[in-house]
Amino acid sequence: MGALYIGVAMAIVQPTTIIESLRLSKRLGVDVFLATETFQHTGSFKFRAAYSVASGVPHRLVIAASSGNFGQALAYACSLLQKSSIIVMPATSAKVKVDAVRAYGGQVEFVDVRLTSRQQRVAELSREHPDAYVASAYDDPLVILGNSSLGREIGNLDRRIDVVVSPIGGGGLTSGIITGIRETGKEIEVVGAEPHVGNRAARSLRAGKLIALEEEPPTIADGARTLSLGKHNWEILRTGLAGIVEAEEDDIREAVRLLFHLANLKVEPTGALSVAALLASPQRFQGKSVCCVVSGGNVDERVYAEILCGPKV
Amino acid sequence: MGALYIGVAMAIVQPTTIIESLRLSKRLGVDVFLATETFQHTGSFKFRAAYSVASGVPHRLVIAASSGNFGQALAYACSLLQKSSIIVMPATSAKVKVDAVRAYGGQVEFVDVRLTSRQQRVAELSREHPDAYVASAYDDPLVILGNSSLGREIGNLDRRIDVVVSPIGGGGLTSGIITGIRETGKEIEVVGAEPHVGNRAARSLRAGKLIALEEEPPTIADGARTLSLGKHNWEILRTGLAGIVEAEEDDIREAVRLLFHLANLKVEPTGALSVAALLASPQRFQGKSVCCVVSGGNVDERVYAEILCGPKV
Repeated sequence: MGALYIGVAMAIVQPTTIIESLRLSKRLGVDVFLATETFQHTGSFKFRAAYSVASGVPHRLVIAASSGNFGQALAYACSLLQKSSIIVMPATSAKVKVDAVRAYGGQVEFVDVRLTSRQQRVAELSREHPDAYVASAYDDPLVILGNSSLGREIGNLDRRIDVVVSPIGGGGLTSGIITGIRETGKEIEVVGAEPHVGNRAARSLRAGKLIALEEEPPTIADGARTLSLGKHNWEILRTGLAGIVEAEEDDIREAVRLLFHLANLKVEPTGALSVAALLASPQRFQGKSVCCVVSGGNVDERVYAEILCGPKV
Repeated sequence: MGALYIGVAMAIVQPTTIIESLRLSKRLGVDVFLATETFQHTGSFKFRAAYSVASGVPHRLVIAASSGNFGQALAYACSLLQKSSIIVMPATSAKVKVDAVRAYGGQVEFVDVRLTSRQQRVAELSREHPDAYVASAYDDPLVILGNSSLGREIGNLDRRIDVVVSPIGGGGLTSGIITGIRETGKEIEVVGAEPHVGNRAARSLRAGKLIALEEEPPTIADGARTLSLGKHNWEILRTGLAGIVEAEEDDIREAVRLLFHLANLKVEPTGALSVAALLASPQRFQGKSVCCVVSGGNVDERVYAEILCGPKV
């Protein structure tokens, strides 16, 4: 399946967008460029993973719980493949997110999270639809396979790259990037960037084993609120990562602002984690040529305006 | 000079960034994609023109009056060419704009516009520096030559394009696009997009001669507040344009919002004029494959937040 799948997916996945900004490099004191997935189908790298999953399983119906980027990506991937999708979302989800999933052809099933967990609702739906595939947003070898296409793109760029910095939520993106770069045979370090208040990857690396958080971390980077890295991802990250940088919440907000002002790039807070890592640990990257992966751009306009301008009086 | 210049400039100018958004096409009811110059050096297409001017004249010092994108672009182009630049800006200019010109290596000269016009200040500086070239942001054949590179890029895309829609301020961008597309031999219509309250291009086309506005139009698209099209541009536009769409201010604001929500693209109001034209005249573009040129992305964060979320309470 490998080669054929990759050929098909690469024709459908949008290539990542490379952005250079002299002023951003000057401000960070590091020679940096961006590989942004904000213009990927559905606005985040998740489409790479979702298309890989939806095309890699034989099932005609795919079910997943997601209030964010994976839900939109899976709905669209299934539409392209003439498959169906059911996306389980909290009944309190923002209307724009629900509308987005529906616009991409997904069927939304709400769950009242005060009464039932998302996992319970998925299990119920799975019993109702025994032929369906239940997809995980970040713990599935097909997710890593899909995201590895970004690593290959970066590895195949015709330019010097010493380090790639990538946001870590469940770890699917970063393990995919490590895998893809390895396939190109390039010697490029991969550093993960995560919120300090949700530092499951850093703690896992320090402990040498998978450590889960006890509760959802209070970070503005909502794509990095997962309690634990995926198990499949961890197997790649434990040996493949050159390090982790833990960014403070203020670094993340400042990175969103810098990308707005100096690179004209609209990003969601999770997408800004890689640039936040350069703000948090500039000395770590001194003298290196750095590729910051921006994972996605879907952010509520009020959250975004508040980051740019501060809270309303 | 032509071929050599083009070869040099093309290695320095960033290629335009192509963005597709299924949801944007659905919302507009038109098969549309974006060619955005927001990631061009200095954040707007003006770098194409500025580099063409700065490299096309033998002078070591270039002077221009600009409080906006042309000033930043000219400062950076001169830096790359080891030339000097003096940018005349109103003393009341926003600090971020002054800082941007300086960050790109330009020398800023302020003018108190209550006492002296920008043109008078430029004339003074020109007398002080008799060896300097005084550059126009939009009325110079070198501007059209520089901007024609974007027309060639669009004409050479490997896809069906029926119409290109381009913002019109002084007309330098659109006349460059017409020129560049002609060079590729493609049959693609070019339609200009301008604010209805500043419709100098539409009125000129209707009159068959260059019509100047009497005062600066009150449009949010600050790159389209010029009183008149450039004379060189008019000679190309009068025969090369397939039409003009006049967009209302509400269309421009809505286009900025749609690009934020459906394409993850941060644009300045002037840059959104092409999408605003599709909102203003959807029937004009029905059934066609449309390329909307987004001219730039440099916008004050408070103006942007106000467009996204409305004025503060």
